[in-house]
Amino acid sequence: MQPLELPTFDTLRCELEAGNLHLWLQRPSARNAMSLKMVEELLALFERIEPRRDVRALVIRGSDGNFCAGGDIKDMASARATPAGADTDPFFELNRAFGRMITRANRLPQVVVAVLEGAVLGGGFGLACVSDVAIAVEGVQFGLPETGLGIPPAQIAPFVVKRIGLTEARRLMLLGSRFGAEEALHLGLVHYHSSADALDEQLAAVLAQVKRCAPEANATTKSLLLATETMEHEALLDYAAQQFAAAVRSDEGGEGTLAFIQKRPPSWAQ
Amino acid sequence: MQPLELPTFDTLRCELEAGNLHLWLQRPSARNAMSLKMVEELLALFERIEPRRDVRALVIRGSDGNFCAGGDIKDMASARATPAGADTDPFFELNRAFGRMITRANRLPQVVVAVLEGAVLGGGFGLACVSDVAIAVEGVQFGLPETGLGIPPAQIAPFVVKRIGLTEARRLMLLGSRFGAEEALHLGLVHYHSSADALDEQLAAVLAQVKRCAPEANATTKSLLLATETMEHEALLDYAAQQFAAAVRSDEGGEGTLAFIQKRPPSWAQ
Amino acid sequence: MQPLELPTFDTLRCELEAGNLHLWLQRPSARNAMSLKMVEELLALFERIEPRRDVRALVIRGSDGNFCAGGDIKDMASARATPAGADTDPFFELNRAFGRMITRANRLPQVVVAVLEGAVLGGGFGLACVSDVAIAVEGVQFGLPETGLGIPPAQIAPFVVKRIGLTEARRLMLLGSRFGAEEALHLGLVHYHSSADALDEQLAAVLAQVKRCAPEANATTKSLLLATETMEHEALLDYAAQQFAAAVRSDEGGEGTLAFIQKRPPSWAQ
Repeated sequence: MQPLELPTFDTLRCELEAGNLHLWLQRPSARNAMSLKMVEELLALFERIEPRRDVRALVIRGSDGNFCAGGDIKDMASARATPAGADTDPFFELNRAFGRMITRANRLPQVVVAVLEGAVLGGGFGLACVSDVAIAVEGVQFGLPETGLGIPPAQIAPFVVKRIGLTEARRLMLLGSRFGAEEALHLGLVHYHSSADALDEQLAAVLAQVKRCAPEANATTKSLLLATETMEHEALLDYAAQQFAAAVRSDEGGEGTLAFIQKRPPSWAQ
Repeated sequence: MQPLELPTFDTLRCELEAGNLHLWLQRPSARNAMSLKMVEELLALFERIEPRRDVRALVIRGSDGNFCAGGDIKDMASARATPAGADTDPFFELNRAFGRMITRANRLPQVVVAVLEGAVLGGGFGLACVSDVAIAVEGVQFGLPETGLGIPPAQIAPFVVKRIGLTEARRLMLLGSRFGAEEALHLGLVHYHSSADALDEQLAAVLAQVKRCAPEANATTKSLLLATETMEHEALLDYAAQQFAAAVRSDEGGEGTLAFIQKRPPSWAQ
Repeated sequence: MQPLELPTFDTLRCELEAGNLHLWLQRPSARNAMSLKMVEELLALFERIEPRRDVRALVIRGSDGNFCAGGDIKDMASARATPAGADTDPFFELNRAFGRMITRANRLPQVVVAVLEGAVLGGGFGLACVSDVAIAVEGVQFGLPETGLGIPPAQIAPFVVKRIGLTEARRLMLLGSRFGAEEALHLGLVHYHSSADALDEQLAAVLAQVKRCAPEANATTKSLLLATETMEHEALLDYAAQQFAAAVRSDEGGEGTLAFIQKRPPSWAQ
């Protein structure tokens, strides 16, 4: 496989290191608010890395101390200035594009790690909800401010419900609540709570665990986890058994068994 | 819009104050057990307030220190004395009426706040499960005593599962467990745990937060949250984007944007 | 009803005591790894006890200090040695048989109590996820090591998601995490955390609570709980009301009402 090549992005910064792609949302003057341009660049990035099993984890964070402060005000103004066509509505398109991006982020075959610092609001909150591992850094501010602005948190509602359940989603959205790392951990929104000083160590520990898990097996497992939301039970178990049989017969399955018998780490963990 | 007028109820007491409707279940001699009459009066009340965006929150509590001790014994005796018709069964009708009421309570466009004191048993437990915000007051007793009486907690089972998940619902129902405020908070059944003294303050804080959120945006958000349970993912995101576009173009959306730019509270928060 | 008679099993040990069936997974030299033989014997046992309302609880544990260390290595080797037929694949069959067993365990009409000690890995983890009441004993080690061996935790994925939610299932599976009793309680995987010394008392308390709940009402309740996952809302409430009406008119419903009026324990609790 050729080395991963990525285009240059306006709103993102990427660094590939030891099989992990580190991604920074990079519009610091707007607290990394999610512009349409950023949505499109994220989609382009996801498309590029989806087939790459040599990229084991995607670490998403924001530049300059904020994760993402939500939607972009300028895009909203621009949509307001655009006349709605016969069958297009610029507000609909703007909102829906974010939903396509976050849906795709949710289904990435890599392990997605979110490092949550500073503002994690609206769309940024939604993006945090599709990570496989989420680390809240001391001082983080989570919030869903939409209803206070007279609009619903539309594309992110389903992802918030899946992340923390209906009971807490009702309260947080209908009260426009703000909260910190401690409550995020209690709600099950994040998995770890870290001080700024301990973050590097925490992240390294997570990435070390990812490395021990086989890339194809992880991709298959993630697709099975997401399939539990839509497939009928018996059909799902049939499909899962097919995936199991294919995995056992694959190179990974052979190497995993051999390494286990020989009491050594498998190739992907070295 | 004309001021809200409510009929006089036998089993309920209502007070409208500053845009919030305070509702007391009022059969204190029976610890506010949920009689068929109460079910019918609740349905009539819900029908009346559903279209009213000037009612921002509905606060439900029980009179005289108990929330609701479950179903009513006299209704059960009366159903037993009623011969079943060719296609009607008085026990079926009695049980199903409660399910219609609680389903409608779950979908009210207002923010529903439950103040949970004293006995919160059976049907009362079910009603607590459809609130958007739940406050457990020191000394509260939650319980699902049905199976100990030889009957299933039938209409409330789906609402309990949605509220606290299948794992805990299995245990609580199959053991007929009783528990207090601390465990209710741990289970995610309630959001806040308050002493009797601190209750007024806690409730006022919640209602102040509700006031900051736009009434139409909140109603739309709640309907989107509930739609996540039944709609297919892509169709839901399309529907959500339509709701978003309509909200941005609405009076609320305009006022919300303007207030944000002018750094002042929007009209609905004043 | 005739006394329950059970065949002799190679991989299981059973003791019926005071209406509760105590079951030990019994392959201690393999830390009770789940062989195909054990799967078949569990299915045979479940078939035998399903219609028996005189069996109130099934207590599952492992012999010699481990619950179950996952799938059996020898079965895997044997499947590898078996040529795949035109429409059979021995790995598919091996995996799928476990899914049939765990699906049936999930739907047992009895209260299923899991006592979780030592290794609770892979398939053992899955089995823990379908218990109605789970007790983690000090020193227990939970884990999903599959992806580290190059294979997905295929049949158990849906049960893990139902048990602890998608958010935590993603992390645990994609990182191959190991954890103890404290975290299992935090995740909602188990209901109680007990020291080895306190286990007998904890288990007795659970079984005493089971005894207070009517056996038919419990079986109906459990089927309603599981039906919430697949039935449409209104159809489910209709079905629940039918079950309610039938229960009220049953022997249990009559006895429960009478015992309540006479302020004495009902027959099933004596």
